[in-house]
Amino acid sequence: MNWWKVIGGVLGGAVILAAGLLIGHFGISKNTEPKWATALSRDVDEEFIQEFMKEVDTKRIEDNLRRLSLKPHVATTPADEELVQTILSHWKDANSGLDDAQEFRYDVFLSFPDKNNPNNVKVVTPEGTVKFTSKRAENETTTDQRDPDILQPYLAFAPNGTAKGKLVYANEGKVSDFQHLSEKINLTGTIAIVRYGGTGRVNKAINAAQFGVIGVIIYTDPKDINDGKSSASETYPNSWYLPPSGVERGSFKENFGDQLTPYYPAKNSTYRIKESEIKGLSPIPAQPIGFEDAKSLICNLQGPPAIDSWQGSLGCIYNIGPGFQPSSEFINSDVEVNVYNKRTIKSSANVMGIIHGSVEPDRYVMYGNHRDSWVHGAIDPSSGTAVMMEITRVLGTKLKQGKWRPRRSIIFGSWGAEEFGLVGSTEFAEEYYSKLKDRTVAYINVDISVFANASLRAQGTAPAQSVIFEASKQVKTPQGTTVYENWKSNYNRTSPQYGLIPQMGALGSGSDYAPFLHYLGITCMDIAYTYDRRVTSARIYPAYHTAFDTFDYASKFIDPGFTSHQMVGRTAGNVLLRLADSLILPLGVRDYAETLEDYYNRAEQSFQSNLVSKNISLAPLKMAINRYKKACEALEETIKELKETKETPLKIRMINDQLMLLERTFINHMAFPEQLYYSHIIWAPRSSGVATFPGLADAYLQATASNSQDDWDMVHHQLTIAIYAVESAASTLEQVTHISQR
Amino acid sequence: MNWWKVIGGVLGGAVILAAGLLIGHFGISKNTEPKWATALSRDVDEEFIQEFMKEVDTKRIEDNLRRLSLKPHVATTPADEELVQTILSHWKDANSGLDDAQEFRYDVFLSFPDKNNPNNVKVVTPEGTVKFTSKRAENETTTDQRDPDILQPYLAFAPNGTAKGKLVYANEGKVSDFQHLSEKINLTGTIAIVRYGGTGRVNKAINAAQFGVIGVIIYTDPKDINDGKSSASETYPNSWYLPPSGVERGSFKENFGDQLTPYYPAKNSTYRIKESEIKGLSPIPAQPIGFEDAKSLICNLQGPPAIDSWQGSLGCIYNIGPGFQPSSEFINSDVEVNVYNKRTIKSSANVMGIIHGSVEPDRYVMYGNHRDSWVHGAIDPSSGTAVMMEITRVLGTKLKQGKWRPRRSIIFGSWGAEEFGLVGSTEFAEEYYSKLKDRTVAYINVDISVFANASLRAQGTAPAQSVIFEASKQVKTPQGTTVYENWKSNYNRTSPQYGLIPQMGALGSGSDYAPFLHYLGITCMDIAYTYDRRVTSARIYPAYHTAFDTFDYASKFIDPGFTSHQMVGRTAGNVLLRLADSLILPLGVRDYAETLEDYYNRAEQSFQSNLVSKNISLAPLKMAINRYKKACEALEETIKELKETKETPLKIRMINDQLMLLERTFINHMAFPEQLYYSHIIWAPRSSGVATFPGLADAYLQATASNSQDDWDMVHHQLTIAIYAVESAASTLEQVTHISQR
Repeated sequence: MNWWKVIGGVLGGAVILAAGLLIGHFGISKNTEPKWATALSRDVDEEFIQEFMKEVDTKRIEDNLRRLSLKPHVATTPADEELVQTILSHWKDANSGLDDAQEFRYDVFLSFPDKNNPNNVKVVTPEGTVKFTSKRAENETTTDQRDPDILQPYLAFAPNGTAKGKLVYANEGKVSDFQHLSEKINLTGTIAIVRYGGTGRVNKAINAAQFGVIGVIIYTDPKDINDGKSSASETYPNSWYLPPSGVERGSFKENFGDQLTPYYPAKNSTYRIKESEIKGLSPIPAQPIGFEDAKSLICNLQGPPAIDSWQGSLGCIYNIGPGFQPSSEFINSDVEVNVYNKRTIKSSANVMGIIHGSVEPDRYVMYGNHRDSWVHGAIDPSSGTAVMMEITRVLGTKLKQGKWRPRRSIIFGSWGAEEFGLVGSTEFAEEYYSKLKDRTVAYINVDISVFANASLRAQGTAPAQSVIFEASKQVKTPQGTTVYENWKSNYNRTSPQYGLIPQMGALGSGSDYAPFLHYLGITCMDIAYTYDRRVTSARIYPAYHTAFDTFDYASKFIDPGFTSHQMVGRTAGNVLLRLADSLILPLGVRDYAETLEDYYNRAEQSFQSNLVSKNISLAPLKMAINRYKKACEALEETIKELKETKETPLKIRMINDQLMLLERTFINHMAFPEQLYYSHIIWAPRSSGVATFPGLADAYLQATASNSQDDWDMVHHQLTIAIYAVESAASTLEQVTHISQR
Repeated sequence: MNWWKVIGGVLGGAVILAAGLLIGHFGISKNTEPKWATALSRDVDEEFIQEFMKEVDTKRIEDNLRRLSLKPHVATTPADEELVQTILSHWKDANSGLDDAQEFRYDVFLSFPDKNNPNNVKVVTPEGTVKFTSKRAENETTTDQRDPDILQPYLAFAPNGTAKGKLVYANEGKVSDFQHLSEKINLTGTIAIVRYGGTGRVNKAINAAQFGVIGVIIYTDPKDINDGKSSASETYPNSWYLPPSGVERGSFKENFGDQLTPYYPAKNSTYRIKESEIKGLSPIPAQPIGFEDAKSLICNLQGPPAIDSWQGSLGCIYNIGPGFQPSSEFINSDVEVNVYNKRTIKSSANVMGIIHGSVEPDRYVMYGNHRDSWVHGAIDPSSGTAVMMEITRVLGTKLKQGKWRPRRSIIFGSWGAEEFGLVGSTEFAEEYYSKLKDRTVAYINVDISVFANASLRAQGTAPAQSVIFEASKQVKTPQGTTVYENWKSNYNRTSPQYGLIPQMGALGSGSDYAPFLHYLGITCMDIAYTYDRRVTSARIYPAYHTAFDTFDYASKFIDPGFTSHQMVGRTAGNVLLRLADSLILPLGVRDYAETLEDYYNRAEQSFQSNLVSKNISLAPLKMAINRYKKACEALEETIKELKETKETPLKIRMINDQLMLLERTFINHMAFPEQLYYSHIIWAPRSSGVATFPGLADAYLQATASNSQDDWDMVHHQLTIAIYAVESAASTLEQVTHISQR
């Protein structure tokens, strides 16, 4: 044996082996990440979004709408309960459903008309002869109005009673209207007829009562809703305009949520306050009527004519009263308002559906709309529900096919009893307050999805703006432009930062986003299609809350072909997917800086000189806003670096928590002790005309009126609250290990 | 050439190469995880904890204590400011410091005695002759008492004025004491002398004023503090007992935090309420004195003798007055209380230090103690600070050596102005409310670290129990047993779940944990070494808040050898490291079930029969607690599975968020509108003797007293609040994608 050869062979073998080892170890790429790590860093899938949008189908939305608006489905009625089951069965469908769906029930305080004892408005002569009685129901313009389940017109929670007195015309029932009127005539013991618009429904009666008025009649003037058109031939079924017999129903209360159980879920074991302790109800009876009936009343009024801005389109001079013209058949007659509503506690259901998140199941993107209507509710709310059901169908199908699962959990809500004041959503927000505020990324509301088919209309807080812009740029209109461009051409503003952009609206408390925004501090948005203001000045779509808001009306006059519904579904769904699937949450927190600076500038402009004289300085507010801006810029830098370098999933979560929780820093439950729920420093209601921090603006209004030191102290107090909120916001966005006081 | 050989060689080489490739690829373990993934799943390092504990050094603690207690360092005095710099320089030390340290300053409302116009208590004859004046300062028992910077005895925030009247003895100044006294004598216009104990300091004067008393003198009875010993020879410097001239100073206010800026950080730009709007201050002048002075007053009182339980150890019969015995030199004399305090706004500093977390920098474990004292404050608070500085030295050294970095961030706080009512900590908690409540895992407070050297004493909410148990089992006593076993033998209870265990105490509002617990809802604990109750019944360590609380006193009588300090440092540091480094947070949320069940049982036992007659059912509370227990059990199961299977870092974060945020679900800022800060459903203050939900217990107390329907309604309301809190807690612990209503 040749030792050298053996040694050589051994050596050669060793070299080959070594090469193999090296190549095997380093050369053949092993996936260096565990599978979960790959899933953790997956970003939103643009192809999937395109696929989703493609599948949102007009025909299916139309079918949904037809089914949803087949019958009047007022909250807690059998028809409402049927829809609960319909939605549940869709969301539980094995092929197109969600992961889970359930009913969430609350025992809530509602108010209904008495079938056997209908409310009415009468004209009664001194001898007791009834010369006029308001219509009990809308005219049967189509078969839809024949439905026996249509509730007669009423105002929910309007107190019962009979009020009788001379009639006066009080324009929109604003405080300034009654002020003006009271300078001309004695209002004590009168009945006021007012038109919808200008102020909230119940506020008309609350204001009236302060001037001695004892009963209120509310009607819809053709000037406000019909672009002046009032004849039967000009209105539905011949156009989208409200027929003369149409009556807007509605809730007659100031506050939202179940009124007997503020802050706690309405269950039968929950403590209920007394009805007498409820705030924000009308102290006097009130009843809505159609403009046909209103014409009989208003056009017979005596007294001096109302000023020009009070005149409407009933085809006569509106006199202010009190009482009727000597020449009219109503001479010397009083007007009687008779209300026989029944207050009652009923079980109302929300239907909640969930798609479990794969990576961050404990982060929720919420999407919701109410289910209950006043009559058939084709537009309000079924146009929104029809879209929501189409979104859940497309996503549910992908889910069941195993083609998609969101990074974060998605929760859908079909809320009950919204028409009675956002009751179902508020009770849900109360019951799950803790976990919703800790985990919810954003809430998307699509209530009425199509008011009209001209342009997108989006409301929301600043962090929602960028994702709505991004989504709407990806959706095409039937005319071939994008939803974004069309929106921008219809409603726009010039932003200091971005130039000409579509105008986002502010969120009030008009739909179910209110508890999530005002009480929990969750970034909210509301998306719809709306009017071309060059074409109509209608206060809202004319059939709103009447027996004419039907499938026939919607499909013929609001959105023939359902393409606007489709655009809303595509836009809102796109937003939903970006919020659910993006690695970094698409919340533009920096856009709040623009809101804050705008607020600051208005405060400085309107308040500064008086504040200086009271030794109250706005400078710390300015400093806080600058700190906020710097924090946003630094965070954006961090996010950019994070995207470039390979970073850990916990760093991404950290950033996302900062983005998610930013809106929460504006919540201060101590800020407005007189307000139920409202705790958002930026978006609480404001009486002042100065568009700045509402607490500051209203305190300033009060202080300048009274000039008392206590009131000026309150201005300083509210300024402190605003400063502190902005400082907290900055602090939440700053680097988490940064310690240094401003 | 032999082809076979060549082929054989090639084949052989290929086989060897293939083997190499295979072994290289599969056999040589490549770290299949990216590096960050390994770091993300690292759990607490037990070896490091042992190493840490080993290095906590008695000598260094002693040195710290000597330096910290060298001079009187009342909040905002130059000596306090010097310590700010001392602590800053330690925490910024390049070799043993933290990552960063900074001052956080607030402009706070304080109260000091007037150097030129000392407060006093006098006995004045009808002719105006002063027969007695209380001592201006403590006796110079050692050189320490000679320090010119010692503040004369006073009660901070006691109102100024001169009150003059007949003296009465009112035991501890509880409402029941004055009630009892008022049945025997007319209290109007009297001066009451009361002993410390039984009720809060300021409450003695608030109670007194309700009975017509116009001035209050407070002293420390040897019975309560000295186990009856009162002679100079039996007291310090001959023992740990309080010398006859010792006077307990203190804050004289009910509420904590800066009193002019409730809920907002005290900065000069912040709105301040008026002094007259401050709640919880004494309406009448008050002054503390030593028992030597008290003896002159009490032992000369006339009137019937006080009942047995009111008698103390001054060596005479305590008569109740009013006025002095005819046989005494004070015959017919009045007593005068003269108070000349100065209220002022001062800049007070917290020193904050941070160690950046490596994996979850946005999760904070907080550890703090106040820095300010009443005099030298060797025990209160420097014993705690001496320990904190030793913990930061050991950890800081490891950090700077690159041997360790915690998973989560650790924030250390040296709070200012605690003695004036937790001012520094409260202002910090207010300023960073949003981010602290979103990110803080737990707060560890070590104020007085050694009251006495007999046993551990830990207070905390339920989730803190298990980690304190675990840590204390790893610390040895000088006697060779464990801190845990020694604790258990001194203070214990029988738990339904665990059998005999050490007794954890409840947290009131006695130190800086209060704002974090009661306002932010952060899991808190307070750790110290304490008395052997078989040996002493002292109300607190005798030199508390006097000029005798010195290094000499501490090192000779409280903890010779500093081994108790060391044990506290090891235990608290061990807890800190577990909270900072554990993969799954060591918070025993299940232990709250025991608290809740105990609360339920007491409510059922004490209230049930009356509640049934008022149609108020406790059943939904029981159901909520059962739901909580089930949620805990399921979560524990999930955690067990998580530890066994390889799970993603985001799943772990999700569980940790549930654990961290559990305590937050008990916070309800609407629950107790009359209370400043207190918002914790379980731990808010309670007047009722029934140890259950404080809101429920106090409402029940009120309702049974008045039997008014409104008060019974409040019972139901408070029961709703309790139920809702427990439901929210359960909801937070349940699976995050679970949707189903209870």
